[in-house]
Amino acid sequence: MSDFKTVVEGIVKTNEEVKSKVSFKIDNLLKPIGSLGKLEDIAIQIAGITGELENKVNKKCVIVMCSDNGIWEEGVSKCPQEITAIQTANFTRGICAINVLSRQVKSDVKVVDIGVNSENEIPGVIHKKIRKSTWNFSKEPAMERSEAIKAIEVGIDVVESAIKEGYNLFGTGEMGICNTSTSSAVLMAFSGLSAEVAVGKGSGLTETDFANKKMVIERGLSINNPDKNDPIDVLSKVGGFDIAGLVGCFLCAAYHRVPIVIDGFISASAALIAYKLNPLAKDYMIPSHQSLEPGYMLVMEQLGLEPMLNLDMRLGEGTGCALAFHIIESALAMTNEMGSFNQENIDNDFLVDIREE
Amino acid sequence: MSDFKTVVEGIVKTNEEVKSKVSFKIDNLLKPIGSLGKLEDIAIQIAGITGELENKVNKKCVIVMCSDNGIWEEGVSKCPQEITAIQTANFTRGICAINVLSRQVKSDVKVVDIGVNSENEIPGVIHKKIRKSTWNFSKEPAMERSEAIKAIEVGIDVVESAIKEGYNLFGTGEMGICNTSTSSAVLMAFSGLSAEVAVGKGSGLTETDFANKKMVIERGLSINNPDKNDPIDVLSKVGGFDIAGLVGCFLCAAYHRVPIVIDGFISASAALIAYKLNPLAKDYMIPSHQSLEPGYMLVMEQLGLEPMLNLDMRLGEGTGCALAFHIIESALAMTNEMGSFNQENIDNDFLVDIREE
Repeated sequence: MSDFKTVVEGIVKTNEEVKSKVSFKIDNLLKPIGSLGKLEDIAIQIAGITGELENKVNKKCVIVMCSDNGIWEEGVSKCPQEITAIQTANFTRGICAINVLSRQVKSDVKVVDIGVNSENEIPGVIHKKIRKSTWNFSKEPAMERSEAIKAIEVGIDVVESAIKEGYNLFGTGEMGICNTSTSSAVLMAFSGLSAEVAVGKGSGLTETDFANKKMVIERGLSINNPDKNDPIDVLSKVGGFDIAGLVGCFLCAAYHRVPIVIDGFISASAALIAYKLNPLAKDYMIPSHQSLEPGYMLVMEQLGLEPMLNLDMRLGEGTGCALAFHIIESALAMTNEMGSFNQENIDNDFLVDIREE
Repeated sequence: MSDFKTVVEGIVKTNEEVKSKVSFKIDNLLKPIGSLGKLEDIAIQIAGITGELENKVNKKCVIVMCSDNGIWEEGVSKCPQEITAIQTANFTRGICAINVLSRQVKSDVKVVDIGVNSENEIPGVIHKKIRKSTWNFSKEPAMERSEAIKAIEVGIDVVESAIKEGYNLFGTGEMGICNTSTSSAVLMAFSGLSAEVAVGKGSGLTETDFANKKMVIERGLSINNPDKNDPIDVLSKVGGFDIAGLVGCFLCAAYHRVPIVIDGFISASAALIAYKLNPLAKDYMIPSHQSLEPGYMLVMEQLGLEPMLNLDMRLGEGTGCALAFHIIESALAMTNEMGSFNQENIDNDFLVDIREE
């Protein structure tokens, strides 16, 4: 397995020459120039990522990082912490949303226990537990710096193994009670934004609970004082093992030149950390859906990315990635299968005109 | 075949009781209440449409209405009119965007010549030509009132035949040079909006061409003075055969209680006319993508609908519908296949809490 340093320093630029060639090809397809919008952008981006003129998804999967967060004891979620372990087990039974949406698009789901607060190893889960839950970041750092690196390397390991198995498209999911709190803290640490704009109420919190959630997160930032110029400092002090694992996934996909899809707020926060570690990692990321969590769009602004699905979803698990997979494969099919002006022997007089329709 | 009057007067409300039951079922699935957003809305809507608790798409197709517009001679598009006939033929060869995106989601494409300006019958096309192109609506009504009804009945006929063949999900596409002009005119006739906000520039028009396009459409409305309280008057005076055919599709799908997807601006304008003819028709419509044509969102405001895909597309052909089909089928799979709290023997203490995550 490649280590953290090798991966983060080994990410290279995407291939501009191949992007230009595919862009030219798309401009010659039987449609007005640019009229397929983001489908065209995605096809060009993936060509730049792989360096290949023709691209096809062979195997794809959503990686679901499952972990608990010590901040739970502050009452920032109304959910019992056991739900993390219960849902982690349910993912292996094929009955959760991510299972159904993945089956629909012929994607696999890889479930990783990177820090669930449970004793038992759940069959069907990839066991990579760093520790049973992080510590309570409103009182102390969530994890040691070395644990953050180790958790990132879990993500690297999972993605590298999957690439060896032939996967060439990844989605990034998670399950972990309280991980909107850690994600908000990460966003606030990097951006300086206040809890007022970066923290969401969710559906289960009362106004009093919500005020407490914001206060707890602000206290955690104040006590830990993470250095925004040191992404590992931010991650280890106010992040979570699930987020760290996904940081590793984003970095490793970029390192191996494989496209990787961002899901909702937690996944996007991990993408932001990966981007802060190496800005080139962004060029390998494809955003999916616009989460209802208010912090999501603030992270997208930091990344300069725009989602393609507007479904008012806020579930996580990688559900937005599974839906986006179909659009990504449609974008590749468009490039590979559409007829072009050159090949269809259409009267040259029409060539410019139809493309400027 | 059912006639226009039977269909427009025969549309009934969707089944509220079944919607409530499916809504209750979805609230008991293994996820926080409401967290799958529009996927939940779509599943509930379709249950209301069919009146069935379990729903599944058996066969689906995009109906592409192809027709020419007399307004072409005013220079409102830089495209040669022949492009309509050329692309109509290309649709039968499987090489256009709608063919590729439909194959990707296992949808069929039904191509209808409802008014293409060509002599020849193109093999593989459903021949229902009303006339070779409408008249120039900047000088006279685009069509006779009786032709508008006849064109609507083409849409009714195509949808009724498809339902007999087992199709139970429809998409609405079109091909017709200058049909953004007719669509803008329809929107302006109903809403009173000015050409300044309701007319798009497209990519091929110069500033002078664009000013001309707006002036021509305003002149057409001024000369014809369509009665906004008489949707057939609006359709026949400033619409097109393609739009009329799609009006018939929307009405007939609603009449037979089958869901039907709206594509971009032209399809949405047809949906607006169907809604004006019978507001109940709206409950059978599912919007897909947010077209870049500025008039699209104005039509959505009139309909009170919101698209789910934000792909910066502006191609037409029904391409947004093909992409939305996957999301619609995912919504149905979610309802049919996800585990629930009741059946999974999860400790009842967790029941309320996880759903309020």
